[in-house]
Amino acid sequence: MPDLHLLSPRGFRAGGVHAGIKTTDTPDIGLLVADAPAAAVAAFTTNKVFAAPVKVGRIHAAGGRLRAVVLNSGNANACTGRQGERDAFRMCTLAAELVGCDAAHVLPSSTGIIGHPLPMEKVEAGIRDVAQYLGDSLEHALLFGSAILTTDTKRKAAAATVKIGRETVTLAGVCKGAGMIGPRMAVQVGAAAGGGAGGAAKAKGRSLKGRSATLLSYLTTDAKIAPAALRKLFAPTVDASFNAVTIDDHTSTNDTAVLLASGASAAVAGDRDLAKFKAALDEVCQSLAYQIAADGEGATKVVVVRVRGADTDADARAMARAIANSPLVKCAMNGNDPNWGRIVSAAGLAGVPFDPDRATLTLQGTAVFRNGQPLTYDAAAVSTRLAEPEVRVDLTCKQGKGDGTVWTCDLSKEYVSINADYHT
Amino acid sequence: MPDLHLLSPRGFRAGGVHAGIKTTDTPDIGLLVADAPAAAVAAFTTNKVFAAPVKVGRIHAAGGRLRAVVLNSGNANACTGRQGERDAFRMCTLAAELVGCDAAHVLPSSTGIIGHPLPMEKVEAGIRDVAQYLGDSLEHALLFGSAILTTDTKRKAAAATVKIGRETVTLAGVCKGAGMIGPRMAVQVGAAAGGGAGGAAKAKGRSLKGRSATLLSYLTTDAKIAPAALRKLFAPTVDASFNAVTIDDHTSTNDTAVLLASGASAAVAGDRDLAKFKAALDEVCQSLAYQIAADGEGATKVVVVRVRGADTDADARAMARAIANSPLVKCAMNGNDPNWGRIVSAAGLAGVPFDPDRATLTLQGTAVFRNGQPLTYDAAAVSTRLAEPEVRVDLTCKQGKGDGTVWTCDLSKEYVSINADYHT
Repeated sequence: MPDLHLLSPRGFRAGGVHAGIKTTDTPDIGLLVADAPAAAVAAFTTNKVFAAPVKVGRIHAAGGRLRAVVLNSGNANACTGRQGERDAFRMCTLAAELVGCDAAHVLPSSTGIIGHPLPMEKVEAGIRDVAQYLGDSLEHALLFGSAILTTDTKRKAAAATVKIGRETVTLAGVCKGAGMIGPRMAVQVGAAAGGGAGGAAKAKGRSLKGRSATLLSYLTTDAKIAPAALRKLFAPTVDASFNAVTIDDHTSTNDTAVLLASGASAAVAGDRDLAKFKAALDEVCQSLAYQIAADGEGATKVVVVRVRGADTDADARAMARAIANSPLVKCAMNGNDPNWGRIVSAAGLAGVPFDPDRATLTLQGTAVFRNGQPLTYDAAAVSTRLAEPEVRVDLTCKQGKGDGTVWTCDLSKEYVSINADYHT
Repeated sequence: MPDLHLLSPRGFRAGGVHAGIKTTDTPDIGLLVADAPAAAVAAFTTNKVFAAPVKVGRIHAAGGRLRAVVLNSGNANACTGRQGERDAFRMCTLAAELVGCDAAHVLPSSTGIIGHPLPMEKVEAGIRDVAQYLGDSLEHALLFGSAILTTDTKRKAAAATVKIGRETVTLAGVCKGAGMIGPRMAVQVGAAAGGGAGGAAKAKGRSLKGRSATLLSYLTTDAKIAPAALRKLFAPTVDASFNAVTIDDHTSTNDTAVLLASGASAAVAGDRDLAKFKAALDEVCQSLAYQIAADGEGATKVVVVRVRGADTDADARAMARAIANSPLVKCAMNGNDPNWGRIVSAAGLAGVPFDPDRATLTLQGTAVFRNGQPLTYDAAAVSTRLAEPEVRVDLTCKQGKGDGTVWTCDLSKEYVSINADYHT
């Protein structure tokens, strides 16, 4: 869907401006506004150390209706104590004032360096500024999409449409994330309390300051759908997309994914329509997750790890995640080394039932291990295939119907550079 | 205890020879023999993919008595199917024949490349050879200690003595491990079944072939102690030592730790003596664990992560392990970057209760974070201290009495080289 963007779903406007929080000359304040209160669902980090905007956002998202998302990049507003909470709330009240809504209908987000108070003068000026230049064009979507980036080398966006009756419902989303990516988000139902954190370092070809460290995703749809239905759909979607991407398995303090439904198009209700809508939502979120893996810090390739035939989907995902997180596997991928022993043994350490004597492993479609024993294969040919931009690792067990995919990237010397060669 | 070695405890002989399994000219077959059946306890990997010698070793260790340990390096005998099991058992029967005992009293071990059948002709010749040259000198201990090494750059050994009544009981141990180190070993009580794996890649200054990938440790004591008492002591000791070291958190298929008590010295029984013995055992095993972290692949420093004041010891260890395993923390350590946000947020992702608003983090003794907020500190001075060969990360919670330490190392570009720049 090359023509669709975040503001293609009807009923939304957005924008992004540079307020001087990031040192680069790119947008660092973003505002996304729904024309009317939108049905909303949000998922937040389960890290015990969570940022002030997550604390405030949990409360605001609990009502199931949002008018706006206000955000900054370059500063995570994490580990910033009471002042941080006041600042996150101030972002909401100011946005609410400019939009003309209740502050409780505004969700705040921040991403960037940890442990520094937000530069509120710049933030407030930025919010005032961006509120004057909202629109629903591709350009506005791009500005908003840029305002969430930190060490990302590119913007990430996806969209889909789904026919509901005679109407076309559109879904779209943007996201960011390149490091401190090991999301374990939970869909917000009630409210919460607590502290906060983030991360900081330099990057070649990545913004030097405003270094981060978080998965943020904002999704829009013009479907008319009840908040309760959204919630029910969103949790499994998040698990099979954002929660299934890992760069470094370091769950961030600021991870947030939010879906707003304006209701400007067809009503989605009934099992069949909900299933169609869910499929489109999965498609968008999984595309975004894939793009995060592809833009992982230092990544030279995406690694798609799929486990089938495990006892349960959760078990399959746990095995896939163990494979995806092993530094030994990630280094082998970097070196185009068909080192299947690392992969099979990583599956075995996931803590879920796994019988290697009944399993088959393929790399880029070539079987290298079956039923507990090595297979003869052309190692040089497989190695050549491992140099491709997308590597597929498929482990098939003969235990059950569990199926799970996790997206990751390789571990390169560049990753170490990005995260070691810089002082906070 | 510079004069003590693995064969200082009375009642043991050992040796090591080069049989041509490793490509380097160093010993790759080791044999450790007790003069009489020794009380024994062993802990093995909990990876679902475990090597043939682990399968055989579990059965043999279950009886609580062992006469010998026979081992090879250069080949893990993992993912080698039924033939692998026959080969592991053959190592035992041959050693038993030469030692003059039952094969069920011999524990086999292997470490090295995965998915290749053992070169049994070389292995058998080596076992016959080493059996002729056993002794209890330091040199014999060093030969045995060398025979277990793979990518290790140095031998690892520790020893301690403890006064029991008027007698001196000696404990000693050797170990190996540099990569594929994230042990989660369980003390063997009954028997078991299953498959197997290992790992392979090159190393600068490390042996190019025979690449591995496993924690092995062999401990001797001349204490007279019942197998049941040994078992009871060993499980918590392993948890607080070998299971508390992580290089890459990749639990190996071959991890094995075994303790043999010859009974040639004082009887250890009664709470007070057992506690003294346990303290000495902890000291030896923790020293070995520390040495593994210090010799981690690509390591430039040891990082000692200690968490105090958590709800439980297990929670403290889980938080310490999460900190130790974060690639972001490990890269920051490599770069001498006092990036406390990564550390605090890693503690928060461990999935155990943690309240950052009541926690203090110190780096090399300097407090950098307290009660949810950053502290002012001299970042340049702390960075200088982070360049030392041992870095201490201390997180103090105010929740309970839980105390846990995990040893790790930094993540360097050299680590990526070792594990990526080589093809299996």
